[in-house]
Amino acid sequence: MIVVMKNGAAERDICHVVDLIKEFGLKEHIIVGTNRTVIACLGDKRNVDKGAIESAPNVEKIVPILAPYKIASREVKKEPTQIKIGPGGFPLGGKKIGVIAGPCAVESEKQLLETAEKVAAAGCIGIRAGAFKPRTSPYSFQGLGVEGLKILAKARKLTGLAIVTEVVAVEQIPAVCEYADVLQVGARNMQHYPLLEALGKATKPVLLKRGPSSYLDEFLLAAEYIINAGNSQVILCERGIRTFEEYVRNTLALAIVPELKDKTHLPVVVDPSHGTGHAHLVPAMCRAAIAAGADGLLLECHLAPEHAMSDGAQSITPDVLAGLMPQLKAIAQAVDRDA
Amino acid sequence: MIVVMKNGAAERDICHVVDLIKEFGLKEHIIVGTNRTVIACLGDKRNVDKGAIESAPNVEKIVPILAPYKIASREVKKEPTQIKIGPGGFPLGGKKIGVIAGPCAVESEKQLLETAEKVAAAGCIGIRAGAFKPRTSPYSFQGLGVEGLKILAKARKLTGLAIVTEVVAVEQIPAVCEYADVLQVGARNMQHYPLLEALGKATKPVLLKRGPSSYLDEFLLAAEYIINAGNSQVILCERGIRTFEEYVRNTLALAIVPELKDKTHLPVVVDPSHGTGHAHLVPAMCRAAIAAGADGLLLECHLAPEHAMSDGAQSITPDVLAGLMPQLKAIAQAVDRDA
Amino acid sequence: MIVVMKNGAAERDICHVVDLIKEFGLKEHIIVGTNRTVIACLGDKRNVDKGAIESAPNVEKIVPILAPYKIASREVKKEPTQIKIGPGGFPLGGKKIGVIAGPCAVESEKQLLETAEKVAAAGCIGIRAGAFKPRTSPYSFQGLGVEGLKILAKARKLTGLAIVTEVVAVEQIPAVCEYADVLQVGARNMQHYPLLEALGKATKPVLLKRGPSSYLDEFLLAAEYIINAGNSQVILCERGIRTFEEYVRNTLALAIVPELKDKTHLPVVVDPSHGTGHAHLVPAMCRAAIAAGADGLLLECHLAPEHAMSDGAQSITPDVLAGLMPQLKAIAQAVDRDA
Amino acid sequence: MIVVMKNGAAERDICHVVDLIKEFGLKEHIIVGTNRTVIACLGDKRNVDKGAIESAPNVEKIVPILAPYKIASREVKKEPTQIKIGPGGFPLGGKKIGVIAGPCAVESEKQLLETAEKVAAAGCIGIRAGAFKPRTSPYSFQGLGVEGLKILAKARKLTGLAIVTEVVAVEQIPAVCEYADVLQVGARNMQHYPLLEALGKATKPVLLKRGPSSYLDEFLLAAEYIINAGNSQVILCERGIRTFEEYVRNTLALAIVPELKDKTHLPVVVDPSHGTGHAHLVPAMCRAAIAAGADGLLLECHLAPEHAMSDGAQSITPDVLAGLMPQLKAIAQAVDRDA
Repeated sequence: MIVVMKNGAAERDICHVVDLIKEFGLKEHIIVGTNRTVIACLGDKRNVDKGAIESAPNVEKIVPILAPYKIASREVKKEPTQIKIGPGGFPLGGKKIGVIAGPCAVESEKQLLETAEKVAAAGCIGIRAGAFKPRTSPYSFQGLGVEGLKILAKARKLTGLAIVTEVVAVEQIPAVCEYADVLQVGARNMQHYPLLEALGKATKPVLLKRGPSSYLDEFLLAAEYIINAGNSQVILCERGIRTFEEYVRNTLALAIVPELKDKTHLPVVVDPSHGTGHAHLVPAMCRAAIAAGADGLLLECHLAPEHAMSDGAQSITPDVLAGLMPQLKAIAQAVDRDA
Repeated sequence: MIVVMKNGAAERDICHVVDLIKEFGLKEHIIVGTNRTVIACLGDKRNVDKGAIESAPNVEKIVPILAPYKIASREVKKEPTQIKIGPGGFPLGGKKIGVIAGPCAVESEKQLLETAEKVAAAGCIGIRAGAFKPRTSPYSFQGLGVEGLKILAKARKLTGLAIVTEVVAVEQIPAVCEYADVLQVGARNMQHYPLLEALGKATKPVLLKRGPSSYLDEFLLAAEYIINAGNSQVILCERGIRTFEEYVRNTLALAIVPELKDKTHLPVVVDPSHGTGHAHLVPAMCRAAIAAGADGLLLECHLAPEHAMSDGAQSITPDVLAGLMPQLKAIAQAVDRDA
Repeated sequence: MIVVMKNGAAERDICHVVDLIKEFGLKEHIIVGTNRTVIACLGDKRNVDKGAIESAPNVEKIVPILAPYKIASREVKKEPTQIKIGPGGFPLGGKKIGVIAGPCAVESEKQLLETAEKVAAAGCIGIRAGAFKPRTSPYSFQGLGVEGLKILAKARKLTGLAIVTEVVAVEQIPAVCEYADVLQVGARNMQHYPLLEALGKATKPVLLKRGPSSYLDEFLLAAEYIINAGNSQVILCERGIRTFEEYVRNTLALAIVPELKDKTHLPVVVDPSHGTGHAHLVPAMCRAAIAAGADGLLLECHLAPEHAMSDGAQSITPDVLAGLMPQLKAIAQAVDRDA
Repeated sequence: MIVVMKNGAAERDICHVVDLIKEFGLKEHIIVGTNRTVIACLGDKRNVDKGAIESAPNVEKIVPILAPYKIASREVKKEPTQIKIGPGGFPLGGKKIGVIAGPCAVESEKQLLETAEKVAAAGCIGIRAGAFKPRTSPYSFQGLGVEGLKILAKARKLTGLAIVTEVVAVEQIPAVCEYADVLQVGARNMQHYPLLEALGKATKPVLLKRGPSSYLDEFLLAAEYIINAGNSQVILCERGIRTFEEYVRNTLALAIVPELKDKTHLPVVVDPSHGTGHAHLVPAMCRAAIAAGADGLLLECHLAPEHAMSDGAQSITPDVLAGLMPQLKAIAQAVDRDA
C-alpha cells in the first residue's frame, strides 16, 4: 500500500500517518519526491481498511499494491485447477472445453427430458435449468422447486449429463446438493455472503456468476469466500456487465477471460445468453468466448423459445446448438484446446 | 406492449405473433406503417415474459409500455406515503426532512453511545450502524452481531434516536426486529428475493438501498417484492451507481430523486457516504440531495474516521455533521420543506 | 510514478526497469516489500508515457502519482479564477452564481429576442443558443449559421445579456468571437484538440463541456490544452455522463462539482438540461447543482418546447425559469453564495 | 414512433398530440389500452425531433420504432459492402479477413520501415501508424506530421502494404489522401461532424472508430454523415467502450460485431489494442474478434514496446504477431472465412 500525501503536507502530517501505519502492524518507508511525499507501507495486511488512513490530515489518496484476494490467486497456486463435473467426471479447466446447455427453468418433465436428450446428442457435458428461480418481478414464474430438482436427476440418469442448477437461499443447499452436480450462484447473489459461506461447506462444485457491476477483485473475493470456508471447487462465470449499450441486455466483457487466466487458477466459463440477451447474438459470442480462452460455456437452450416461461429471447434452439458445436470444436483446436 | 415486426415480415409471421399474443391472454391491434408493421398488445399482463415473443420469426423487438411494478407506483396510490420512524414516530416522507447518521459498524459500546449523543445533539432523527456487516473480503471485520444490536438499543434508550441497521440474512430478521426501528437492506442484497419476501412479513419499516447497477424499474420491483409480501413501509435509498468515474467510489445519481418522486409514493432518502466514498465530498452532496427533493439522508459519521474499522474514508466527523445541519435546514426551507 | 513488479521478478528485471526509468530522466527508489518489489520514480515528468515501462518483463502495473495536468490545478494557482462575462462583466466564479438560459438553437429573430427578454427578466446573466449545431443525425436541423450569430448580437444589445454559443469548427472561431461573449465547446468536441488549440488563441472566455465518458483528468487536460495555448479564461461545464440509466439521457454526476473545486481553480457550471434530458427533472437538478457548489448553470429554455426544432424534451419554459430563480437564490444564500 | 400518454390523460391532451403529429407531417393512429392510450405515428420522418412531443401535456414518453439511420442500413442495401484496400486492392468485407498492424505513431523512418517488413512478412494486408496524433495531454508527443506521411508512403512502396493513418483535422485531408490508402477517424472524433462531412468528399476509404460511449445508432449515424456527403467506403471499427472495469483501458464489446453485421452492410473491424489497453490481453481478443465475425483487425505492433513513444503498454511485438496469424487463419476457417 502506498499513501500519497498532498503537496505541501507538513512534517507532522507525515509523522501522524506513520503512526497510523504502525498501528496497523505495517512498516513505513518514506520517499520524498519532487512534488509529493509518498509513504510505502511494508507488510502483507490485505485486510487493513485503507480508507481509515485517507481520513488523516493532508493525505491525498491511498494506492493499494497487493490484490485483496489470496488463495484464489495464481501467486499461491500456479497450476490451473481442474474441477471434475458430473457422473462422467469431466475435468473442467483441462484441455477440453465443456459446454453446458439447457432451459432457463425446469418447466415440466417432458420439456426437460426432451431437451436433455438433444443437449447430450449435441455433445454437451451438462444441462442447466433452474428449479428455484430468482425473478426480478414478484409476479413472474418462480420455478418448480424440489419437484424441478427431481426432474433434473431423472435427466442425469437418462443422459449422463451433469446437472447445473441455481441455489438462491442457504436452506435450499441440502436439497440441491442431493440432486445436482454443480451449484450455481446467480449474478444477483455474487455478494450474498451468507450463501457463499454456506456453499463453502458444501461438497459439490460451485459455479459463481460475476455480478453485473462487480470489479474483477470483488469477483475473486467472492470466490475466496467460498474457498476460505472450505470448498475449493469454484468455477468462475462471466455473464456480462451493465453498461450504457442498448442492443444487448448486458455487455459480455470477454477480456476478463484472459485476465482471469492470468490472475487465478480457477476455471472460467462464459454465459453468452445472459451476456447478450438475444438469441441471434449467442452463437457468435459462444465462438468468441472459446477463442478468448474460456474453459467452457453455459448456454440457454429451449425447445420452443417463443413459448419459454422465462428468458425466451435469449434461448437458442437445439438445432442451433447442434450446428454450433462442431464450430466450437474447430475453434478450440485452433487455440490448442479441444472439445 | 408493442411488437415491432421486421421490415419485410410476411402475413404469416404477423398471424403467428397474433396467435402468441392471444395465448398470453392479450388482445392484438395491428398497425401497418410505412416501413414496418407493429402490433399493439392490449391488456394489463405485466408479468408476461415479453422475451418469448421476440423469438418468433421476423420479430424485430418488443417495446414494453406499462411499468412492470404496480403497487409501488403513483398510479395506484397518488398521495405520498409517510413512514413513522423510531420512538418519536418521525414521519419520513412528510414536510420535514430526516437525517440519520452514524458509524459504518458498531465497534464498541463506548464508541456508539458517544456517537449517538453527538448525532442526537446535531438534530438527527436516527442513528445508523451495522451489527451484521456484509464485507467484500472474507478477511474484513464482520460486525459484533447480536451484541451490536444490544448496544444500539441502549443508544436509543439514551437518546431517543431511531435505530437503523442492516439485516443480511433471513434468520437475522427476528433479532434485528427486536432491537432496531428500521431494517436496512444493503445494495448488494437489493435483489436477494428470499430476504425481501421475509422482510415483507416483518412489522418494522424497511430501508431498501438501490443496487449499484440496478435500473429504476428493478429498484421499484424490489420494493414491490416487500410490499407484495405484506409490508408497505418501504423507504427507498439512492446510494450511487457504478460508472467509469474514478474520483468517487460510486456516482451519486441524484436525478433519481425527482424521478422516483414522480413514479412512486414511497419516501426517498440519499446516502452520500457510499454515494461518493470520500468524506470531503459528502457535505456538498448532502446539500445537493436535499435540494433535489430527498426526504432524508443516511450518513456515515465516526468519532475518529482514521481509526474506523470500516468505511473510514467516507465518514464525516460529528463536528462536520453539526456544521452541516443548519445548512440543510436552510436548503430544505428554500424548497418548501423543513428540517 | 510507482512501478509495481510481479511477485517473483528477478534482479535483472528490476535492473532493466531502473535503466528505463533513467532513460526517461527519472530517478529510481527501490522498495523491497513482503510480496513485491516496487520502484518509485522521482522527478516531475508528467508527460512520460508510462505504458512503455509496463511492457518490460515482469512489470505488473504502473501507478501514476501526480495528476497529468498542471496549470489548471489548484497546486499551481490556489485562489479561484473569476471570469468576466458579457457586457456587464459578471464575475463567474465569484460569490454570486450566474444563470445562463436559452433555446438549444436560434430558430428565428422573433423567437430569440422574445426569449432573451424573458431570460433577462428572470434575472439570468446570459443567454445560450446555437447558431452552428452539431447534430447526431445528418438529416437534423443544423442551425442558422452567421445569421444566427447576428440575431444573438441583437439580443445582447436589447437585454445586456452575455451571449454564449457553440463553436464547432476552427474556421468558425473568428465569426463567433465577433458576435459572442463566451465560446462554447460541446461535449462531443471536448477532445477535438485542433479546436482547443485554436481557442487558446481566442480572446473570449471558453465554456468547455465535459465529454460524456471523460475522466476528470481528461477534462482538466482538455482545459489545459486551451490554457497552454494562451487563453486562461476557461469555464468547466458538467453536463452528464453516459451510464446504464434509462430514465435520463445522461447521468448528472454532481459530485464532480466539489471535486473540481478541490482540484482546479477554474469556475464550474452545470447543465441540467443535457444532464437529464427531460424538462420535469431540470428544476430539481438546478437546485441540486447550486447546493453542490456550482458557480452557475447553463439551461435550455424555450418559449414553446413542444414546437422546438431541437431538444424540446429537455427545455423548460420561461415561466418555470421565472419560478425557479428565487429558489436558486435562497439555496445560494444557504451555502454562503448569492444570486 | 409511438407516443405513450400518461394514465389519466384527457381527450384534449390526446387531440393536442394528434395536432402536433400532423404538424410534423405524420398520420396518427390511436389505440386505447387498458391503462393508457398510445398513439402510433405513421410515416417515415426519421428526422423529426421526437423530444418536442414529449413536452406536450400528459405525454409519458416517446418510443421510436424506426432506426434513425437509413443508407448505412441493411434494409436499404442487403448485400455486404466490400471495400478495396491499398495497392493490392484487398477486398475488406469479403471472405478473407484482413489484419492491419503497426505502431501507434511513426517515430522514425528506420522504425517504420523495419516494422512494415515484419508486418508484411506476418501476412498482414496493411500497416497502421499515426503521423498526426491526437493526444490527451498537450505535453505528449504529437506526431511527425507530413514527414510521417512520407515515411508511410515509402513503407507502402517497399512492402505493398495498405497505409492506414489518422486524420485529425479537415485541413489535413488533402495531404493524408495523397499518401495514405485508408483515412482513419479516431474515437474522439467520431462525432466531429465537419470532419465527417469533409471525409464524405474524399476519394479514399474511411475507417471510422466507435466513440467510447457511443450508442450503436450514433455510430451508424456517424457513418451515415460520411456516406450522405458522398463517400460510401466506410469501414466501422469497434475499439472498446468506457465502463467501470479497471483491468482494461476499455471494454471491448464484441457483441457489436454480429449486431452490426445484422444492421448494416458496412465492413466491421476490431481494434483489440485500444480495446484492452494491455498487450497481454491482445492476442486472446484478436482471436475472439475473428471468431465473433469481424472482417479484420487493427492492431498496435511495435519493435520495442518498452521504448514506444506512445501506447507501449498495448503494443504487441512482431514476434507475437507472427505467432498469432496462423491461429487467426485457423479460427477464420472454423467460421467459414479465411485469412
